[in-house]
Amino acid sequence: MTPEHLKRIEKLQTSMAAANVDAIFLYSAINRHYFTGLTTSNGLLLIEQQGAPVFYTDFRYIEVANRVLKGMEIKKFKPAKEQLADYAACAKNWKTIGYEGNLTVAQFLPLQEAMSSAKWISISTMVSALRSIKSADEIDAIRRSATANDALFADLMDTFKVGMSELEMLRHFRMKLAARGLSESFSPILCAGVNAVECHHEPDATVLQPNSELLIDMGVLVDGYCSDMTRTVFFGEPTARFREIHDIVLQANQAAQAAVKPGVRCCDIDATARNIIKAHGYGDYFDHALGHSVGLEVHEQPSFSATCETLLEPGMIITNEPGIYIPGDVGVRIEDLLLVTETGCEVLSHTPHEIVIPC
Amino acid sequence: MTPEHLKRIEKLQTSMAAANVDAIFLYSAINRHYFTGLTTSNGLLLIEQQGAPVFYTDFRYIEVANRVLKGMEIKKFKPAKEQLADYAACAKNWKTIGYEGNLTVAQFLPLQEAMSSAKWISISTMVSALRSIKSADEIDAIRRSATANDALFADLMDTFKVGMSELEMLRHFRMKLAARGLSESFSPILCAGVNAVECHHEPDATVLQPNSELLIDMGVLVDGYCSDMTRTVFFGEPTARFREIHDIVLQANQAAQAAVKPGVRCCDIDATARNIIKAHGYGDYFDHALGHSVGLEVHEQPSFSATCETLLEPGMIITNEPGIYIPGDVGVRIEDLLLVTETGCEVLSHTPHEIVIPC
Repeated sequence: MTPEHLKRIEKLQTSMAAANVDAIFLYSAINRHYFTGLTTSNGLLLIEQQGAPVFYTDFRYIEVANRVLKGMEIKKFKPAKEQLADYAACAKNWKTIGYEGNLTVAQFLPLQEAMSSAKWISISTMVSALRSIKSADEIDAIRRSATANDALFADLMDTFKVGMSELEMLRHFRMKLAARGLSESFSPILCAGVNAVECHHEPDATVLQPNSELLIDMGVLVDGYCSDMTRTVFFGEPTARFREIHDIVLQANQAAQAAVKPGVRCCDIDATARNIIKAHGYGDYFDHALGHSVGLEVHEQPSFSATCETLLEPGMIITNEPGIYIPGDVGVRIEDLLLVTETGCEVLSHTPHEIVIPC
Repeated sequence: MTPEHLKRIEKLQTSMAAANVDAIFLYSAINRHYFTGLTTSNGLLLIEQQGAPVFYTDFRYIEVANRVLKGMEIKKFKPAKEQLADYAACAKNWKTIGYEGNLTVAQFLPLQEAMSSAKWISISTMVSALRSIKSADEIDAIRRSATANDALFADLMDTFKVGMSELEMLRHFRMKLAARGLSESFSPILCAGVNAVECHHEPDATVLQPNSELLIDMGVLVDGYCSDMTRTVFFGEPTARFREIHDIVLQANQAAQAAVKPGVRCCDIDATARNIIKAHGYGDYFDHALGHSVGLEVHEQPSFSATCETLLEPGMIITNEPGIYIPGDVGVRIEDLLLVTETGCEVLSHTPHEIVIPC
């Protein structure tokens, strides 16, 4: 347990006190990691409003938990019924218990039944609000992740050639990734030619043709933190149609970026980009949110979506990724990673927006 | 939609009829993939007991869904409230609705509220029973996955050397994996020396020393299907203590393998291996299940655990992985992938059990 992890738990306990939540069951691997620094596929971090949390896990992780979580009480899970009885005994003092919205129904229902006199409330928003403001160490990790992603992207631009299939490009991506000792923050999206209109296309045998586009959406993990960036590159002489659509998407991206600063609602940033695309008559072809926060997970809260009224705060890290996807025609997305600062934002992605590769 | 996917949906509808389930909401990516062949990060396969299923997804996947799921009705998700109202209108004819146990609480509660007159039951067991019996194509894919894993393992044995850290070995694993156009079925476990007692140890800077052990638990994905194998290799001259523990684990592995045949309860296979380890006095140091099924996911049902009373059937593919982990001393696990046949089992892992590498 580092001082930063202890501080995170304290902050959560402060939020719990403010919301009158007596105890929280944290099962998700990512939240357990966020609050302890330990990664295990199985475990429970049980946090009461006051006092030290307890970490439960199974036989496989007891050794590592004892090593990493010094100072925290470590318990081995008992068989399900006994374990539920133990929780129920603790729960006599709990009026309100918090659960994560992404808890599975199979886990939730037995808990709720065993502690049925308590009120159960989702604490997803409480936890995501804490996770949305990145610490200096987290910002540093994401900055390094974005830089590593830029470097890998540049390397791929020297490698990808007309005549390669999406699957071959995927293989190069993964070889270069591994050679750099990195892993991916999500399975990269590589769309050759008209496949770009399937905005989350899965790489297949499609071959990159001369005078066509390649949409690349990729990110890496550095110290557990994600990066995420998209560029739509042209191999050959860009068509007038590609230039037109790319220009509009870039305008939307730049306008959104310029609008980012503390106190602005996320939905207003989304609208800024969307209105530009609408004004050019392509509103129907941009039907996803403008962006999402990034951290330990590649999709976090808040998001630049039409319904997210969260106010931007310094330390948030959010993608800015407008796109236009016209079936059978052309698909373009341009995505940067933005760090909200005291006065505006810093762009963490440093790859040029317009890339044309002669062929 | 291939004939195999259509057959899977028919089988599910037969199970639904037998259990009086009127409709099933399948949200998990893996189950949607199992029943349709399409992989998307977001979607819902809504299956009624009779008639054709409907596939819902968001804007990002409509194009690919229309391309891949020919013949199936594709609908774009509406905003949450409208969508729930649509389901509720359909639900007038549904008395019992099935959900997946791994559905999130955040998804489940609004569904349950919108269709509160229906009885909601978990269909996880119904679906996992179907998925547990692999088709000829699935067996072929897992066989190729196990073979690819054997080949990669052999390559790594020529590469791993005393003096390398676990993280360097991880980098080699991922480079060779990518060069072969493969991806991993789980993040490999590489435990040098006494780290092997942390049976799911995460690779770190620990350096492989002369005359010490290396536990390697790894698997790859071939056509979406997992393999999974563990070997505990010795670099140098094995100590008497290592030989003793390795021999016991191997005995347990071989006895379990010999006991596998249709009609035997999974828990009895677990007991066969466990009793051997207990008889040698190491029962306290083998505290995980003997094995788990493998398919599209690396952990599927049924499992070789003390509580799993499922009867083995031909076409099941399960790991056989006894282990002994003595803190501060020695850790050994030996894991093979077994295909249950008409008369016994076929071992799909072909890497030798005992590997000693001079150093």
